[in-house]
Amino acid sequence: MIIRSLTFRFSRLRRNPIPTIKSLAKTTPFAFQFRQASQSAVKVIFSGIQPTGVPHLGNYLGALQQWVELQKEPSSSTRLFYCVVDLHAVTLLQNPQQLQIWRRETLAALLAVGLDPDRCNIFFQSSVPAHCELMWILSCTASVGYLSRMTQWKSKLSLPEQSSVQDAAAKAKLKLGLFSYPVLQAADILLYGTTHVPVGEDQLQHLEFARECAGNFNAVYGHVLTPPETILSPAKRIMSLKHPMLKMSKSHADPRSRILISDSMENIEMKIRLAMTDSISGVSYDPVSRPGVSNLLSIMSHLDEEERSCEELAEACKGLTLRQFKDKASQTIDKGVSEIRDRYIHLMQSSGASALDAIARQGAVTANKEAGATMADVRRAMGLH
Amino acid sequence: MIIRSLTFRFSRLRRNPIPTIKSLAKTTPFAFQFRQASQSAVKVIFSGIQPTGVPHLGNYLGALQQWVELQKEPSSSTRLFYCVVDLHAVTLLQNPQQLQIWRRETLAALLAVGLDPDRCNIFFQSSVPAHCELMWILSCTASVGYLSRMTQWKSKLSLPEQSSVQDAAAKAKLKLGLFSYPVLQAADILLYGTTHVPVGEDQLQHLEFARECAGNFNAVYGHVLTPPETILSPAKRIMSLKHPMLKMSKSHADPRSRILISDSMENIEMKIRLAMTDSISGVSYDPVSRPGVSNLLSIMSHLDEEERSCEELAEACKGLTLRQFKDKASQTIDKGVSEIRDRYIHLMQSSGASALDAIARQGAVTANKEAGATMADVRRAMGLH
Repeated sequence: MIIRSLTFRFSRLRRNPIPTIKSLAKTTPFAFQFRQASQSAVKVIFSGIQPTGVPHLGNYLGALQQWVELQKEPSSSTRLFYCVVDLHAVTLLQNPQQLQIWRRETLAALLAVGLDPDRCNIFFQSSVPAHCELMWILSCTASVGYLSRMTQWKSKLSLPEQSSVQDAAAKAKLKLGLFSYPVLQAADILLYGTTHVPVGEDQLQHLEFARECAGNFNAVYGHVLTPPETILSPAKRIMSLKHPMLKMSKSHADPRSRILISDSMENIEMKIRLAMTDSISGVSYDPVSRPGVSNLLSIMSHLDEEERSCEELAEACKGLTLRQFKDKASQTIDKGVSEIRDRYIHLMQSSGASALDAIARQGAVTANKEAGATMADVRRAMGLH
Repeated sequence: MIIRSLTFRFSRLRRNPIPTIKSLAKTTPFAFQFRQASQSAVKVIFSGIQPTGVPHLGNYLGALQQWVELQKEPSSSTRLFYCVVDLHAVTLLQNPQQLQIWRRETLAALLAVGLDPDRCNIFFQSSVPAHCELMWILSCTASVGYLSRMTQWKSKLSLPEQSSVQDAAAKAKLKLGLFSYPVLQAADILLYGTTHVPVGEDQLQHLEFARECAGNFNAVYGHVLTPPETILSPAKRIMSLKHPMLKMSKSHADPRSRILISDSMENIEMKIRLAMTDSISGVSYDPVSRPGVSNLLSIMSHLDEEERSCEELAEACKGLTLRQFKDKASQTIDKGVSEIRDRYIHLMQSSGASALDAIARQGAVTANKEAGATMADVRRAMGLH
C-alpha cells in the first residue's frame, strides 16, 4: 500500500505558483490527504454538490474552494468531475419550481467560485442517464443487509441509529430512494473511473460502500470498476451565525444564520451584526467558551489575505469593541466574496444565462461520453451487448 | 368504471380477418379481458420477456402467441411495446457469455413467432437508459414497507412467505436488485404510457404495484404517469413433459421436460416419446388422474388446425396405442412450430444476423424516442430541467 500525503495551502495557492508536495507536507492543517494513492499515473477526482441554491460560506470554504484549488494540478495527471447531484436531491420531497431555480443557481455558483469548464467536467447528474443505469447494475450485487445498517436514512428520517427497516416508524416513512441512494452515490463515483474522492469524516461510510460495490461487481465480472480512495479533506467547520455550536447549514430555518456567496455588503453587515456572540468584552479566540466570536475569527482567518491564524487575528483585534470587530469581519468577508458575487450576478442575469445553458449542455455531452465508455465496459463484462 | 370484454380465438385469427368484439364476446375461454379499459381512444400495450434463450411451448402458447395476435388490432388504436427485459435477468447471477447468446436467441424467437417490427416496438430493455432513470425517480416515492411485503423476492430466494428483510437468511442473501425490481418493472410499463398489460394471475401483485407507483408520483407531481390496467390473459398452462403437475419451465434441470420452438422433428419425437404419461390403456382427457396424457392433449388442442377441444381430441385418439398417440402429438407439434423453427434458424444464421442487429438498433431508436418523451414530462414535472 502506497501512502502519500499531498497538501495545499489554498490562500497561498491563489496567488503563487503551485508548491511542490514536499515543500508543503505536514506544514499546514489545510491538507488534502490522498489516503491511498492509485498506482496509475492519472488521478480522477469526483465530487458532488446538492442543488440547494446559492452556496453559503460553509459550502465554499469547506468544499468548493478545494475544488477550485485542485484545478491547479496538471490536467494531464489529474482529471476532475464535479457533479450537481440533482437525482440525490429528490430522495426527499422538493418543490419543483424551487428545484429548477436551485439547480441553475448551483451551476452558476460553481462557475462563480472559479471552476473552469475547460479544466473540469461540470454537469448535472440527471443529464447523464448512465448514473441510474450503473446504479441498477450495482443494485444487483449490493446487499440489503448492508444498506439497512447504514446510518444516513435513519438520520434523515430522525430515527434512532439502531432502527431497522421493519420498525413501524421506518415502515411508515422510508422510501426506496432514500434507502438505496448510497448505491446511486457509488454509481456516480465509479462511472468515471474515479481514483480519489474528497470527503469529510461523515462520508467515509459511503466511500467504503462505493468500494464494496466495486468489489462486489469485480468479483463477479472481472476487474472493470476502480475502487476509489478517499482524499480526507481538511476540516473547515464554519458554524451557524445564530447557533455557533451547529454547522452553518441550508437546513436551518433562519436565513440570517448563514452568509451566501452572493450576499451584498449590506446583507453581510446585517447578518454579522445579528450574529450571536457573547457579552465578554474584547476579542479572543476560544471556540469552547466563546463559539460565536471564535466562528467569526475562523471565517476571517480562512479569508484573510495575510493568512493569519485565528489567534493572530484575535490578537490584532483585541482592542476593538464588538461592533468594530463585527464591522471588520464584514469587510473581510465582503472582500473575500466580492469577485465571486460579481461573477455570480452576471451569470444569473440574462446576459450570462445563455453561457450557463451552453456550459450545462457541454458538460452533459462530455460526461455522457465518459460515462458511456464505462457503461460499454460494464455491459460487455455482463453479456448485455 | 367502464368494463369491457374483448375476446380472441387465436387459431381462428391466424387465418381469418379479426372478428368484432361483439361476435366473440363470451363465446370462448380463450379470452383477453380488458379489466378496465382506458377512456383514451388509443390503447398502449406493454409486455416483457426474460432473455432465457429459445422459448418453449409454454412461453409460446402462454404469452407470445397472444403478442402476435394483438398485432391484428388496428395500429391507429393499439400500440404495442414488447421488451426483452435483460436488466431484470441480472437480478440473479448470469453467465455473461450465456446471457449474450440468450438475448440474441430471444430476439430472434420474437421475430420467428411472427412479431412484425414494423407493427410493434421490439427492443432490449438495456438499450433504453430511461428504464433505470424512471426506476430511480419512482424509487423516491416507493415504500420500502410495501416492497418488503411482496412475495417474489422471497420465492426467488426460497424463503418462507412470512420472511422479513431483517431475518438472518434474507440478510445473508438478499440483494437490492432483487428486492427493488418491481420498481424497475413499474418503470418499464409507465415509460410508454401503457394503458394495458397482459398478465397472468401471478403477476397481478406487480401490476397493482405499478399502479401504486404511478399514483404515488402523480400525487406529488400532478397527473403525468398513466396507471395501467390489466389484460387478464387466458390461462394456457402447458405442463412439464417430465413432471406434468408442474408448469413447463426453463428452470427445470432436464431439457427434455420442455419443447423449444426451434426443436427439430427428431427432437420433438424424442422428447414426446420420453414424456411421462401413465400405464392406463387408451387415451382420455383427465387432468387430475392422467396429467401427462392430458397435457399432451392440451398442447395438441392449442395447435390443432381444426381447433378441437381436449375432449374432442381424446375421443378422436381413443383407439390409439400410447406409442401411436405420442406420434400423433409429435406430428401436431411439429406442424405447429415448423414455420417458426424455419424462420428462427434463418435469423440465427449469418444471413439473418445482420437483419437481427438492424432490428435491435431500430427498436432501440424508437423506444428511446418514446421513453424520452415521457422522461421529458417527468423531468419538467419535478423541476429537473
